[in-house]
Amino acid sequence: MNTKRFILPENEIPREWYNIQADMVNKPLPPIHPATRQPLKAEDLYPIFCKACADQELNRSDRFIPIPDEVLEKYSYYRCTPLVRAYGLEKALDTPAHIYFKNESVNPLGSHKLNSAIAQAYYAKQEGVTNLTTETGAGQWGAAMSYACKIFGIEAAVYMVKISYEQKPYRRSIMQTFGAQVTPSPSMSTKAGRKILTENPMHQGSLGTAISEAVELAMNTPGCKYVLGSVLNHVCLHQTVIGLEAEKQMEMAGEYPDTVIACFGGGSNFCGLAMPFMRHKILEGRKTRFIAAEPASCPKLTKGVFGYDFGDEAGYTPLLAMFTLGHTFRPANIHAGGLRYHGSGSIVAQLLRDGLMEAVDIKQNDSFKAGVLFAQTEGIIPAPESCHAIAATINEALRCKEAGESKTILFNLSGHGLVDMSAYNSYLAGDLVDAAVPDADIARYLKESGITE
Amino acid sequence: MNTKRFILPENEIPREWYNIQADMVNKPLPPIHPATRQPLKAEDLYPIFCKACADQELNRSDRFIPIPDEVLEKYSYYRCTPLVRAYGLEKALDTPAHIYFKNESVNPLGSHKLNSAIAQAYYAKQEGVTNLTTETGAGQWGAAMSYACKIFGIEAAVYMVKISYEQKPYRRSIMQTFGAQVTPSPSMSTKAGRKILTENPMHQGSLGTAISEAVELAMNTPGCKYVLGSVLNHVCLHQTVIGLEAEKQMEMAGEYPDTVIACFGGGSNFCGLAMPFMRHKILEGRKTRFIAAEPASCPKLTKGVFGYDFGDEAGYTPLLAMFTLGHTFRPANIHAGGLRYHGSGSIVAQLLRDGLMEAVDIKQNDSFKAGVLFAQTEGIIPAPESCHAIAATINEALRCKEAGESKTILFNLSGHGLVDMSAYNSYLAGDLVDAAVPDADIARYLKESGITE
Repeated sequence: MNTKRFILPENEIPREWYNIQADMVNKPLPPIHPATRQPLKAEDLYPIFCKACADQELNRSDRFIPIPDEVLEKYSYYRCTPLVRAYGLEKALDTPAHIYFKNESVNPLGSHKLNSAIAQAYYAKQEGVTNLTTETGAGQWGAAMSYACKIFGIEAAVYMVKISYEQKPYRRSIMQTFGAQVTPSPSMSTKAGRKILTENPMHQGSLGTAISEAVELAMNTPGCKYVLGSVLNHVCLHQTVIGLEAEKQMEMAGEYPDTVIACFGGGSNFCGLAMPFMRHKILEGRKTRFIAAEPASCPKLTKGVFGYDFGDEAGYTPLLAMFTLGHTFRPANIHAGGLRYHGSGSIVAQLLRDGLMEAVDIKQNDSFKAGVLFAQTEGIIPAPESCHAIAATINEALRCKEAGESKTILFNLSGHGLVDMSAYNSYLAGDLVDAAVPDADIARYLKESGITE
Repeated sequence: MNTKRFILPENEIPREWYNIQADMVNKPLPPIHPATRQPLKAEDLYPIFCKACADQELNRSDRFIPIPDEVLEKYSYYRCTPLVRAYGLEKALDTPAHIYFKNESVNPLGSHKLNSAIAQAYYAKQEGVTNLTTETGAGQWGAAMSYACKIFGIEAAVYMVKISYEQKPYRRSIMQTFGAQVTPSPSMSTKAGRKILTENPMHQGSLGTAISEAVELAMNTPGCKYVLGSVLNHVCLHQTVIGLEAEKQMEMAGEYPDTVIACFGGGSNFCGLAMPFMRHKILEGRKTRFIAAEPASCPKLTKGVFGYDFGDEAGYTPLLAMFTLGHTFRPANIHAGGLRYHGSGSIVAQLLRDGLMEAVDIKQNDSFKAGVLFAQTEGIIPAPESCHAIAATINEALRCKEAGESKTILFNLSGHGLVDMSAYNSYLAGDLVDAAVPDADIARYLKESGITE
C-alpha cells in the first residue's frame, strides 16, 4: 500500500518561524505615513498592534524567529498537520502529475488561521492587553481568534463582514461558543461604520470595512489592541509553520514540488505554505513555480496595480505597498469571503514584481466544480476559498496530462467547507454567478482610491 | 513539553477487526423470526443485507476478521486518528484524573461512522450491488455512507429523520454534495411511511421510522441492499479499529484506562472504542469500568427492559435481543439525533446483563454545558452526541477530584459539531429543554410494543 498521509511526530513541530524578509534581495517596501509619506518604524505601530508583532512586521534581519514555548504548546493541540497524496484526485483526472496537499483543515477551528491567532493572542497576553478587536470575512479568522483569546483569557470583539454574517450564521455561532462578541460590519457602533451606512445603507460589507471598524474600536479603547488575520508580514511569518512542516513531509515522500499553489485573499495561507520553499528559489535557484489563485471577482494580483494604498476602507491604516484594486473596491458577494480583499501584502507584492511568483484568477462556479470533485475523490469538503487552489491545481494537472509531464504539485488545503454548505447548496442548485469584475469597474475604483501605477 | 497527541504511523492501522462475540462467555442472543420464533441463520439475512455483513453478524468463532486491502486503503485517507490527552479540560476541572480522548472527529466526514460505511460499501460492490439504502438520524451516518458509496461507484438513497432534515439542512447538503438522494422520513414514498403519516401527520421521524422506509425500499428494489450505521454486530465489528488503535496509543502514553466512556445510540461508537479493552476484562480479569452515556430522553439502557423487539417502527426487521424502550417509542426532539433510537444492539445488551458495563443518562442541557467547556479548553466543538460522553467523563473526573483519586479516563470523541451549530445556538440562548422521559411514558410504549421483561 502506498503511503497516503505523511505525518510528523510532535517533536518535529517547527521551533522557529521563517522570515523571508531576511532573504529577499529586493526588500518589501515599508509602510508609510499617509500625511508625511515617511516610512514607519515599529514604534509607530505600537498604539494599534502588540509590540512583538510590530517588531516582527519590520524585521528584515532575522531569518528565523523562535516560536515561544506557550505557542508551541498550543500548536501541539493540532500540529503537525498531515501532508496528503491526492491519489483519488489524480486518478479522477487521469494525470501523470503527483498531487500533494497540506491539510490545514484538520485543525480544530477548521482552517490555517489558528497558526497566527495563537501567536497574536499569546503576545497580547504577555503585554498586558485585556481586549482584542479584529475583522473576519468568512469567519475562519474570527473563529480562530475567538478560541485563541479564550485560551489566553482575553476578551474578543469581532467585526464580521455583513454578507458573511448573514450567509454563514453558524460561523458566528462558533465564535459565540468561544465567548466572543460578534458584530456585523458595517455597523452603527463606529464612526467609520456610520459613515459607510449613511452613504450606502445596503452596503454588504467587505474586509476593508470591517478592518476600519475594528481599528477604530482598538484606538478608542484602553487596554485594547487590534489583530489582523492576513496581509501583514508578521501574520505571514506565523503561517510559515505550514511550509516548514511541508518541506520535511515532502522529503518523507521523496519528492520536491515543481509547483506550489495556494488560494489568495491577503496572502496568509499562500505565504504560509510558499515562503519556506521560496527561500530555496531565492538562495539556491530552485526552479519551483509559485501560483496564487484568486477569485475572478477580486483579481488584485492579475488585474490590480502596484502602489501604496490603505489597508482598510476608511483610510485608518498606514499606506501599504500592495497590488491593489483600490481600498474602496467593493467585491461581489461570492461565497469565498476570505478572498474578498482589495490588496495583497507587501511581501507578495514585491515577489510578484520580481517575477518570483505568478497569479491566476478563478471563476466562482469553476472553484466549486473543483471543490465537489475534490470532495468526491478525497472525502474532504473544501472551504470555498480553498476551492480556488484546487481549481488551479486541477488546471495544472490537466496541463501535465496534455504535455505528458509528471510534475509534482503541492497545494494548500487551507480549510474545510463544513460551515459553508449553504454555498455548496447554491452551487448544486445552479444559483451561483461567476461575478468576474469588468476592467472598467477596476479603473473606476482605482481612480476613486487615488491609486496610480 | 508533555505529549498532547499520540499518533500511530500508517503501517500501524489495524489489519483485522476484533470480534468480541468469539470471546463472550454468554453469547449475544441471536435474531429470531417474528412468526416462527426460530433463530435466524446468515442466509436468512441475505435478501436484505450484503452476504459478507450477514456472515459477520452471526460469526461467533473468529476472534479477528481480516480487513480487506481496499478497505484498508480507504482507511488510510484518515486513519490512524489521534489519541489526545485533554490537558486543557483536566486543568479547567482541577482534577487529578488523566483524561484521554480518541479523536474520531478528524475523520473527513466528521465522525466515526465512516469506519463501517467504507466496509459496507466495499462488500456491496464486491457482491455486485448497485444501490444501497439507509437511514440517518443527525446525518453523520448518511454523510459517511454517501461518500463511501461515491468512492465505490454505488448509488445511495438516504432516509433522513425529518426533524434532523429540518434542523440540520447542511448535513443534507453534505450528502447531496456526494451525490446521494436524501428523503425526509416519514415520507410518502413507502408503505411504512404512508401508514405513519396517515396516523400522525405531524410525526417528526425517528431512526426506527427511517429504518422501516429504507428496508422497504431495499426489499422492493432489484440490485439494492440495505445498510445500517449502528446496532448490529457487524457494524460494531467494523468500528473496533477505534479501540484497537487506542490500545496501542494508550501504551505509547504509558497508561491503561481505568474507565472507558462513550455516548450511546445504538452502540457503534461505544463498541468501537470499548470492545478491544473489554476483551482484557473478559479474558484477563482487568478491572476496567465501561460506561455508556445515553440521553435522559431516550434511556434504553438505564430505564428500558431486556427482551426481543423489532429494530424498526414498522416491524420489518427480525426480532433482536435488546434493552429497549419499545419499537414504537417516540423520542423527544433533542439535537443529539444519533442517540434517538429505542434499542441497544445484542452484544451490548448481553454485556450489560452480565454486569460487564454500566450506563448513565445525561440531560440535554448538561450535555451542551459539557460540550462548551470542552470546546473552550480543547478547541474542538463536539457533536451533540459526543457531548454526552464528555458530560459523563466530567462527572467521573469530578468524582476523582472529590475522592482524591488519579484515575485514567478514556472517552470517544465520536464526532465534531460544526454542522450542529444551530443546536449550540439554541443552548447559548437558553432555549433547550432537558426532555427527560417520564417512567409512565416508557411503560406505555413498552406495552404498545408488546415487550415484557
